[in-house]
Amino acid sequence: MSNFTITIEDIHAHISQAWEKLKENQPLTHCITNSVAANYVANILLAAGASPAMIDNPFEVEDFTKISSALSINTGTPTTEQTQAMLIAAKTANLHEKPWVLDPVGYGPILAWRSATVDQLLKYKPTIIRGNASEISNLAGNIVDSKGVDSTLNSAEVYAQAKILLESTSCVAISGESDFILSKEWNVIIQVNGGSYLQPKITATGCALGALIAAYTSVATPTIATIAAHVHFAIAGKLAAQKTQMIGQFYSAFLDEIFSLNIDKIQKYTDIKMIN
Amino acid sequence: MSNFTITIEDIHAHISQAWEKLKENQPLTHCITNSVAANYVANILLAAGASPAMIDNPFEVEDFTKISSALSINTGTPTTEQTQAMLIAAKTANLHEKPWVLDPVGYGPILAWRSATVDQLLKYKPTIIRGNASEISNLAGNIVDSKGVDSTLNSAEVYAQAKILLESTSCVAISGESDFILSKEWNVIIQVNGGSYLQPKITATGCALGALIAAYTSVATPTIATIAAHVHFAIAGKLAAQKTQMIGQFYSAFLDEIFSLNIDKIQKYTDIKMIN
Amino acid sequence: MSNFTITIEDIHAHISQAWEKLKENQPLTHCITNSVAANYVANILLAAGASPAMIDNPFEVEDFTKISSALSINTGTPTTEQTQAMLIAAKTANLHEKPWVLDPVGYGPILAWRSATVDQLLKYKPTIIRGNASEISNLAGNIVDSKGVDSTLNSAEVYAQAKILLESTSCVAISGESDFILSKEWNVIIQVNGGSYLQPKITATGCALGALIAAYTSVATPTIATIAAHVHFAIAGKLAAQKTQMIGQFYSAFLDEIFSLNIDKIQKYTDIKMIN
Repeated sequence: MSNFTITIEDIHAHISQAWEKLKENQPLTHCITNSVAANYVANILLAAGASPAMIDNPFEVEDFTKISSALSINTGTPTTEQTQAMLIAAKTANLHEKPWVLDPVGYGPILAWRSATVDQLLKYKPTIIRGNASEISNLAGNIVDSKGVDSTLNSAEVYAQAKILLESTSCVAISGESDFILSKEWNVIIQVNGGSYLQPKITATGCALGALIAAYTSVATPTIATIAAHVHFAIAGKLAAQKTQMIGQFYSAFLDEIFSLNIDKIQKYTDIKMIN
Repeated sequence: MSNFTITIEDIHAHISQAWEKLKENQPLTHCITNSVAANYVANILLAAGASPAMIDNPFEVEDFTKISSALSINTGTPTTEQTQAMLIAAKTANLHEKPWVLDPVGYGPILAWRSATVDQLLKYKPTIIRGNASEISNLAGNIVDSKGVDSTLNSAEVYAQAKILLESTSCVAISGESDFILSKEWNVIIQVNGGSYLQPKITATGCALGALIAAYTSVATPTIATIAAHVHFAIAGKLAAQKTQMIGQFYSAFLDEIFSLNIDKIQKYTDIKMIN
Repeated sequence: MSNFTITIEDIHAHISQAWEKLKENQPLTHCITNSVAANYVANILLAAGASPAMIDNPFEVEDFTKISSALSINTGTPTTEQTQAMLIAAKTANLHEKPWVLDPVGYGPILAWRSATVDQLLKYKPTIIRGNASEISNLAGNIVDSKGVDSTLNSAEVYAQAKILLESTSCVAISGESDFILSKEWNVIIQVNGGSYLQPKITATGCALGALIAAYTSVATPTIATIAAHVHFAIAGKLAAQKTQMIGQFYSAFLDEIFSLNIDKIQKYTDIKMIN
């Protein structure tokens, strides 16, 4: 698919640079997220070095999106007011060229109300769309029975279909056992390995990943930002699982590892593959 | 009270079977819960092996209840939209014969608005009602001064009064130092011992128990489901407290023990008593 | 500034007494707080010995404020209904002479909607106002560019300006590396040292501090309550950071230390200074 030349070493260097800038800039990351995830998303962003703010009412988002470095919208538990806020924030981000991430939680025929909101949000050209395989497949026009908000599909099955979404966005990220990132910029697919089977056993890890991508977009290109956030999560998940196989302890250990990433770990544990 | 014959050994076997099926089926458990508990409820269900989904807007619950395996409704922090969602979801569950659990948090004369909602919800015949002693006593028609959403009564004082609620439901569970479960099906009261004094010092453990009962209803009869969830919690609380007496560590340890239940632990630590 | 005589030893004794009474009385503390913080606030209050209740709908707060021991209002993620609830609760607290704490999260020109609510809330004479330096400075009439809901100012720069707020309240607390408490009652400023640089890396610690102040107001004068809560946090943060420098573990350790405060620790670690 690609005639673009970038080496894995280049990508390692880009990830390291993005991570350093994130720590340095502490970008104000505006999150409109769900009630299950809000606390965890804020803690993950703080641990990574970003500065989260959960402003999700329709009366303040326009002003707030303007002063933020990046925006993350997640449709996990929408209310009428929050839905209004999402639409205003996305419109504002688009108008003021702020990078923003769309995480269309639960997109599909069963959850029709939020899905209609997502359809509207797409008009405001999200910089990056991320979701699980069922959500991305549904968004790409393939009707899939998802199991609630969890995926019943494998991400590898979906990435070919997902290309059509690059009409609306610069990057599509599909999370799963391995993650797949479709980049319009580079015209490649990047596979990110790592993490742990324990990650999906903690609620809101996907939601936090979407918000972390947004934080990275303020210090890197969309493709690098998306890769950097996924690698940050993959390394943290892998190292946390080396410390414990118990879910409660893993919850703590994962936050610890998000917090204690460094250049050495990025060099040593980044596990990505280019798919052409 | 009973002329039904079931041995403690039979019950142990039923609990083990229910737990195995929960792990195997990963039932999609639809939760409408409060903003304090949402994250913890989702993590407890995931740790137990169920698949939680917090869909709580009135525009999506009808469709979602239909595809879910079970429903849990908790009135901890109701909003107008969430209240509408509760009523639609309960009606749908009743119509489509989906098992559902009602956790009437705060029911009583002080919190009149939610209590009126609970009164309406009762019309849709919850499969199981669970609450603390004050809530259940109030619901049974005895006006009790509760301390906010915590109980001022002992569960043992309440279970006799609670029988009247079996007109609206198959099972009533009253949580406290020991838990008492009234079964219409078996025409007995089951006392569940175990747990730890630290459990009520973590917010939302009761809310998570209600949701776990719902998850179990999709793989067992109402009585077995209610017993299994209470025993799951009682064993986890007991074993977590053997590891630590510190509240922050207990929080983690409790999740670990919910996650690592097994047949041996069920056999060894289940502590129930039949009261006739 | 002061002609009031109180020794540091007196204050230690007052803090110890307040802490003992909190454990004994388990005051019902009514919290209207944000969706990011709700779970953590409840867990901190439970760990400290108080009894939290998050009642935040406009249909129940009047009745609930009347039976509560104290009220905490936090404007982190307001909705229309929650804003109505805040106004009713503050009015009721004022009318019935219940102590209440205002935590004007995000107050400033960017977040104009909530700031207008805060302006209205001030009419109901909060017993204590607490916030970070940017919020308090903005509230005192100095327009400050805050970084979202985090502060860009140092608390020491702000306490002189903040005196004007004593027209609306008995106490103003400004949190930061050191905390500064302005007491109208004593006509002094108290500086509280301790804590850890890790505290602001966990979301909602400030929100939990506001709620803990409220809990203490039911067992002590406004000044003692404010000092006691700040010292409780400062000691917990200091001791937790002696155990771990990792953020996930610190989260647990901080709860542990809130839970395990005792008279010896209060005597040994309280680090306050009077500024006249």
